[in-house]
Parts: sequence; C-alpha cells; structure tokens
Amino acid sequence: MKPVNLLDKLNKFSSHWDPHVVADYNDNDVMVVKFSGEFPFHLHEETDDFFFVLQGEFTMDIETESHTVKEGELFIVPRGVKHRPRAIEECHVLLIEPKGTPNTGDEETAADKPRI
Amino acid sequence: MKPVNLLDKLNKFSSHWDPHVVADYNDNDVMVVKFSGEFPFHLHEETDDFFFVLQGEFTMDIETESHTVKEGELFIVPRGVKHRPRAIEECHVLLIEPKGTPNTGDEETAADKPRI
Repeated sequence: MKPVNLLDKLNKFSSHWDPHVVADYNDNDVMVVKFSGEFPFHLHEETDDFFFVLQGEFTMDIETESHTVKEGELFIVPRGVKHRPRAIEECHVLLIEPKGTPNTGDEETAADKPRI
Repeated sequence: MKPVNLLDKLNKFSSHWDPHVVADYNDNDVMVVKFSGEFPFHLHEETDDFFFVLQGEFTMDIETESHTVKEGELFIVPRGVKHRPRAIEECHVLLIEPKGTPNTGDEETAADKPRI
C-alpha cells in the first residue's frame, strides 16, 4: 500500500496503445497508456470505458460525433457504444477497465497489459 | 456523452469532505472532493477506495503508517483497511466508489454525494 506516481510509471515505457497496469481497484485494472495516431473503432459489450487525460489531448470519435478530451478531462464511453480514440500528438491517459477486458474489444488483437 | 472538466466541477462548490458525483463508470460513482483538515478513521468492508490527487497533497494514515499522496499520485486503500485522509492545505481529489458506498463507512454519517 503506497502512492503510485503516474508520471514515474509513464516514464517506464514509450510504446503507444499499450496500456500498463499500475494498480488494482476492486476487480478493475488501473492503467496508464500513451496514445499517438489512431486506434481502431471497437466496443465493449460488458463494460463502460474510463479515460482521464493526464497530459495532452485526444479525440474520441463516436459514430457520428467527435469530442476533444483535454488534460484534466474525463470521458466515459458507455458499454455497447462503438468508439475510436485518436491523437495527433502523444497524449497520456489514465484508463480503468474490469480485469480481462480486451482493449480492442477482441481477445485476438488485445494488448497484454503488463504490470509496472 | 461528453468530456467532463474536473476543474470546472471543482469550481462549483467550496465545502470540504463533500464528494460530488461528476460521472458514472459501471456501477461506480466518479467524484471530485476537496479535502481540508482531518477526516475520521473508517473502513469499507466491501470495496477498495480509490484516490487520485488533482491538486495539492494529502496524508493517508493507515493504522501504524502514513503516506503523503501528491498531485499526480494515486492511492488505493484495499477493502477492510482502516484509513484516515487528512490535509493541512486544501487538496482536490478524484474519488471512485461503488454506488451506495457511505464515504464515512457508516450510512448514518455519510455525505449525500450530490451530482454536479
């Protein structure tokens, strides 16, 4: 039980779209991730998707609308809603997902989510 | 579905130890709160307790140890662990708790958690 400094954790990797687990909250993984470029459109049938911008900004595309999500802003995608995050410049994000959730919405293409 | 700016939400109230709900994540309330002074020792039997410091710093007392939790740091108190947050200067925190969790660990003394 100790404080987790998210900037220290972010300094441990440089890969994009590669969430790293930094803590556990109930049955959820608490993760940090670096966005750069465009992620595929996907959805999660069973869970909402939690994004909080730590640094920079990204765009969340949701079917017919797009939202810019800036540093200090939270964006929650309700379960079942198709979405695509994308970032022109690197953006650092805090993510929360129930353990076992594939980040792409598909087990076959999902990232490993290493713990750091 | 839109971005939630936490600073805008924090500017809507000035009370301490008074969490305000800003979003929903699965069956959890996502809240902002202002700490100042000392909260009572308490515990949650059924849930971990999620704290992320948005501004300032606070101290988390846990039985025989104390941790300073600074801006950009996360602290998760596992379920069943007695804890007390306290802050010498006002500190702004993002909290996540399952809906219905009394912030004091006791329904009788719990805050209302209004939505803003």
